[in-house]
Amino acid sequence: MFPKNAWYCAGWDHDFNMIANRLVPREIAGELVMLYRKADGQMVAMEDRCPHRQAALSLGTKEGDGIRCGYHGMLFGPDGKCREIPGQTKIPERATVRIYPVVEKDGWVWVWMGDATKVDPALIPFAVGPHEPGWVLKTDYMPVNTNYRLEIANLMDLSHLTWIHKATLGGTDAYTNAKVKSTVLERGVRNEFVVRGLPLPAFAQHLFPKGMLIDIDYHVTCTIPCTWVLHFRAYTAGTATEGPPNGQLILDTWSGQAVTPRNEDWVDYYFSWGTSVETTIRGLPETLIHGAPPAFLENKAVPEAQWKRMKKNPGGNRLRIANDADGNKTPAVLDKILAAEAAAAMAA
Amino acid sequence: MFPKNAWYCAGWDHDFNMIANRLVPREIAGELVMLYRKADGQMVAMEDRCPHRQAALSLGTKEGDGIRCGYHGMLFGPDGKCREIPGQTKIPERATVRIYPVVEKDGWVWVWMGDATKVDPALIPFAVGPHEPGWVLKTDYMPVNTNYRLEIANLMDLSHLTWIHKATLGGTDAYTNAKVKSTVLERGVRNEFVVRGLPLPAFAQHLFPKGMLIDIDYHVTCTIPCTWVLHFRAYTAGTATEGPPNGQLILDTWSGQAVTPRNEDWVDYYFSWGTSVETTIRGLPETLIHGAPPAFLENKAVPEAQWKRMKKNPGGNRLRIANDADGNKTPAVLDKILAAEAAAAMAA
Amino acid sequence: MFPKNAWYCAGWDHDFNMIANRLVPREIAGELVMLYRKADGQMVAMEDRCPHRQAALSLGTKEGDGIRCGYHGMLFGPDGKCREIPGQTKIPERATVRIYPVVEKDGWVWVWMGDATKVDPALIPFAVGPHEPGWVLKTDYMPVNTNYRLEIANLMDLSHLTWIHKATLGGTDAYTNAKVKSTVLERGVRNEFVVRGLPLPAFAQHLFPKGMLIDIDYHVTCTIPCTWVLHFRAYTAGTATEGPPNGQLILDTWSGQAVTPRNEDWVDYYFSWGTSVETTIRGLPETLIHGAPPAFLENKAVPEAQWKRMKKNPGGNRLRIANDADGNKTPAVLDKILAAEAAAAMAA
Repeated sequence: MFPKNAWYCAGWDHDFNMIANRLVPREIAGELVMLYRKADGQMVAMEDRCPHRQAALSLGTKEGDGIRCGYHGMLFGPDGKCREIPGQTKIPERATVRIYPVVEKDGWVWVWMGDATKVDPALIPFAVGPHEPGWVLKTDYMPVNTNYRLEIANLMDLSHLTWIHKATLGGTDAYTNAKVKSTVLERGVRNEFVVRGLPLPAFAQHLFPKGMLIDIDYHVTCTIPCTWVLHFRAYTAGTATEGPPNGQLILDTWSGQAVTPRNEDWVDYYFSWGTSVETTIRGLPETLIHGAPPAFLENKAVPEAQWKRMKKNPGGNRLRIANDADGNKTPAVLDKILAAEAAAAMAA
Repeated sequence: MFPKNAWYCAGWDHDFNMIANRLVPREIAGELVMLYRKADGQMVAMEDRCPHRQAALSLGTKEGDGIRCGYHGMLFGPDGKCREIPGQTKIPERATVRIYPVVEKDGWVWVWMGDATKVDPALIPFAVGPHEPGWVLKTDYMPVNTNYRLEIANLMDLSHLTWIHKATLGGTDAYTNAKVKSTVLERGVRNEFVVRGLPLPAFAQHLFPKGMLIDIDYHVTCTIPCTWVLHFRAYTAGTATEGPPNGQLILDTWSGQAVTPRNEDWVDYYFSWGTSVETTIRGLPETLIHGAPPAFLENKAVPEAQWKRMKKNPGGNRLRIANDADGNKTPAVLDKILAAEAAAAMAA
Repeated sequence: MFPKNAWYCAGWDHDFNMIANRLVPREIAGELVMLYRKADGQMVAMEDRCPHRQAALSLGTKEGDGIRCGYHGMLFGPDGKCREIPGQTKIPERATVRIYPVVEKDGWVWVWMGDATKVDPALIPFAVGPHEPGWVLKTDYMPVNTNYRLEIANLMDLSHLTWIHKATLGGTDAYTNAKVKSTVLERGVRNEFVVRGLPLPAFAQHLFPKGMLIDIDYHVTCTIPCTWVLHFRAYTAGTATEGPPNGQLILDTWSGQAVTPRNEDWVDYYFSWGTSVETTIRGLPETLIHGAPPAFLENKAVPEAQWKRMKKNPGGNRLRIANDADGNKTPAVLDKILAAEAAAAMAA
């Protein structure tokens, strides 16, 4: 089950280039969508299925700003309306393909999978993206064989930093014990917290003075259905025990992550990570994104094994623990949104 | 659903050689069949399943003209009757495996999957094959992950030449607009038509004078369940506007194609293509068959994507267009034959 | 369906080493189990599923003799009881994972999948293993895509030596015609028989005088659910026509084999083979185990093809033959044990 009236990330903007016949097929929230750019660079997101014989339009060709089906040559405009049916002059009213609202923002391409009359760009989460002046962010991608609900539970679950990423991000139980200011939003959850006096993560220790300790100020927002934006600022360990760290800012970083469900079993996981130009060290953003894959792979291995077990034991016993509070919040907001959509569908 | 009283292509004759234990397993119309040659070169098509413990006879060994099961050593003659059961002298009447009628013709091996009393070699489609004196035809093969019904609809759908094979076979909308003399046969469809004043297909243009135009006289026959034979003759562009082209014959070619269903999801696609010796250019038949794979791969990609979408949207809306007439004819004959077989089964 | 109150082989003892985080995941009789060694070398077999969120414990880390879940850091002792839940001090009673009884014997690791109060080490089959003084046995492993019932039927089916292993183990119809003293045990079957005047198997003929004939004294025991132990002694062909061979002992060998079901479709097949030090030839045990894989692969190909056919034809006709007697005995004991467990479950 996926919310329909919502934005889903379909990839990074550079995934969609202007090569003549570059048509990019995706599966998003259970539907087959094909994306491309018009001559003016604007994106189009079109149902990837000809209404005639269900051929894949992504096997067709771009013609002007439209798409020519590769099977019988029907031509569809970027508005989804059929312009030509070879062999006949009359174009029936219902010869259309669905067009999905699509927006580019912060380096991401977003597709609205629901009712086009309810489209709301204000619902797109804020992020510092890879093209932001003053910032150096790198991007990457991985497919994950799990249900997206397990990914979003994982991402907002602070305690997971301690354990899943123990070896890679250097988690300590500071995360488990952090005092989190957690705010449940209309369509998401925002967490703010500071961890103090931590060693640097293993993969970055060689870049800073030996034994250096840091304070980190975290701002994390998860937006339903499946986006997660992290702003974290690292400071030399200071003396403040409450409020923002009072050491010297040594690293200002953003990470944007989207875990778009293809269907119930697979997620396309798009992620960025990087630093401000002011606080960067030459080569550090590459270290983050290339040092990060082991951490991101931990975000792959764990939810994949969970999903395998959940399918094997659908009624499997689930022990509740105190630290569940965080991990449960985003699934709860997801369920609220799903219920509201179901109720609206019943009423309609 | 597959017609049973019908010939299915099991491969090219050279797929079945005389290497000592060469037993070739196939899945045809949902049944597991094993094929081999006897000492005199005659083909045998035998159920690939021992009646004892369902072992695969294709894992056994040839012994004379029979097959020794590799599990408990039961020996079956080429008539399917058991000759030996190690450990006992009595051979029960029902110790048999099914033998399927099998015929070689035009380089193809044909298996009759239905009632052996109804076998009719006259139902094997006529083709010029790779061994025909005066002709130089090459053969190839590919598996396709689709339902055979989509392949046969595709093959008799002339408009598909325009679009699917645009880049490879140089289709133009001459095909979409061709006046076709279409004849629905007892067990198939025959189409005859001429297209005039066409440029040569891209992959062959360098072999002929620059800018040369041609007329092509097509005779195409699809035989249910799944064979498609094309005879096409290319002429220098003439002045005739009706009837056969009146230019000079520059290429006389045949292509035989069989899209044998393994089951509902997979097709074994066997194809040949080549020219008469008189009109060939040295190396041209190789150009056709090796230049053709991109075109044949188009016959793979499109029906595979369709089948994926049809399974995802079984009740998916299907727009009808004027050009459907061609593509619908062979599925209609197929349905008629399936209905007749079902009615006969009910009556029996 | 698998007997629960039974020992299943989880692998060779050397599969479970002391590398820091060596946690070995297995699927046994439908359940996910994770195995490791404690600091003292003792084995632990633990349910591979955290009771909290169904994370895989095999993705966690060893901590002392316990396991720290890699997701939220819950720590479980080797007794399955939770020792720590990060973020809280109270440990609920039901925060436990299942511990399976586990025993090492003859180089094998055995796990008891049923009621721990009924555990009975006496049910572990006797074998000479690879660490036995005076013996040189080698081990190997292969996965098989079949139902374990087909493997155990195969292994106790003497006639299969004649046919399946014709080319590799040099079977002759001596096996089909052997007079077998067959004893049905409480939980298995034991077969004893002598075959006389055989040529050596092809892969070993070059090691002995040309044309040499041998008598072989076989003792084979299959223990339900899935273990098969072979003791075979080869003698120069003697004059005895009954009772043990009276030639000279030239080879005293043991093979232990376990075909552990993962689930209904897959088997983990662990096997050993080797000779006594007294009768060995330097390099012979390697010849057996490396010469054996073709034979073991025959034990893979045949049951895999059978299983494919049985699933395709669940009600498929099965001809009975005289030689079935052997192959049917172990499945019959298996069925008896399954029925007894089902009856006990009903009564409980």
